[in-house]
Amino acid sequence: MKVDVALVHYPVINRNGETIGSAVTNLDLHDIARAGKTYGVGTYWVITPFKEQQDLAGQIVGHWTQGYGGSVNPDRSSALSIVTVCSSYAEVLAAATKKFGTKPLVLATCAKEQVATLRYAEIRSRIQQGTPVLLLFGTAWGLSPELLEAADGVLPPLCGPTEFNHLSVRSAASIILDRLLGERDEKEA
Amino acid sequence: MKVDVALVHYPVINRNGETIGSAVTNLDLHDIARAGKTYGVGTYWVITPFKEQQDLAGQIVGHWTQGYGGSVNPDRSSALSIVTVCSSYAEVLAAATKKFGTKPLVLATCAKEQVATLRYAEIRSRIQQGTPVLLLFGTAWGLSPELLEAADGVLPPLCGPTEFNHLSVRSAASIILDRLLGERDEKEA
Repeated sequence: MKVDVALVHYPVINRNGETIGSAVTNLDLHDIARAGKTYGVGTYWVITPFKEQQDLAGQIVGHWTQGYGGSVNPDRSSALSIVTVCSSYAEVLAAATKKFGTKPLVLATCAKEQVATLRYAEIRSRIQQGTPVLLLFGTAWGLSPELLEAADGVLPPLCGPTEFNHLSVRSAASIILDRLLGERDEKEA
Repeated sequence: MKVDVALVHYPVINRNGETIGSAVTNLDLHDIARAGKTYGVGTYWVITPFKEQQDLAGQIVGHWTQGYGGSVNPDRSSALSIVTVCSSYAEVLAAATKKFGTKPLVLATCAKEQVATLRYAEIRSRIQQGTPVLLLFGTAWGLSPELLEAADGVLPPLCGPTEFNHLSVRSAASIILDRLLGERDEKEA
């Protein structure tokens, strides 16, 4: 099982569809690291080109992995130890390719249905067969069109029985990891 | 489909298993409201006995449902409109029973396997058949033993392929709503 997650702070879009860089937030680091660790993610890449934001993310992670936080809460230390801060998608793709020994299948996520959609069951099965996968999640209003196009495919939007699907990226990442990697009880296997 | 969610701030346990009251946090309100709205939850009950905490939760919700926030972001207004702040589990159970016209099936959630465990597929099927369900989520280190016992059953802990399962309550609630109410593509139906 070779699955990495990347949280993109640039390039993402704002509510008007313009490309922006968003700010790193504390709970995006914690919640996605905790879900990642639970579901067996190898590396949780946090992508921001801004030096101050990289430093901030590094300080938060360091507090829990090397500082006081980890001594009080070792589980949190274990979760945040999977975080690596990087400056661009290109850098993450190169590092993940080197780590896996081959280019991973890059899957973007989006709240709107896209053309190159791959089904969850198919990806789940490919992961079980050993295909390395890199999942891209966007902050703000989502990944920029260039990242959606750069990916090998896009996962279907998460839907319930309503027309509403404005999940936080923390919720979306958690649900997608569960769909792809969660244990199922017999009737759901 | 009749499903409510309750987020409990008292009685919950701390890391030593002692019963405490926890603080309301902004993103617990937002993330679980957004997931709730996406998956068709009727009411998202926020339980705290502390007057100041009830006021804080009410102010946050009011900012988005009646104040400036909602005019800028109507989707967030729509999500937070499902929140109702209450002072105790007993109050929520009475209000939910009145709303549904019958006592709902109360399901607790816990990161550790419990005796009275019900499977996700079974609950999913009962929800589809019209059974009203109230899902209880605990903040801090989880629901107190008395709430676990008061429930009609406990959902299985969320597991991935690791021994680690320290999810945030935001992640756990999102994943459980998706397991019980999410649309599945054909192969997963």
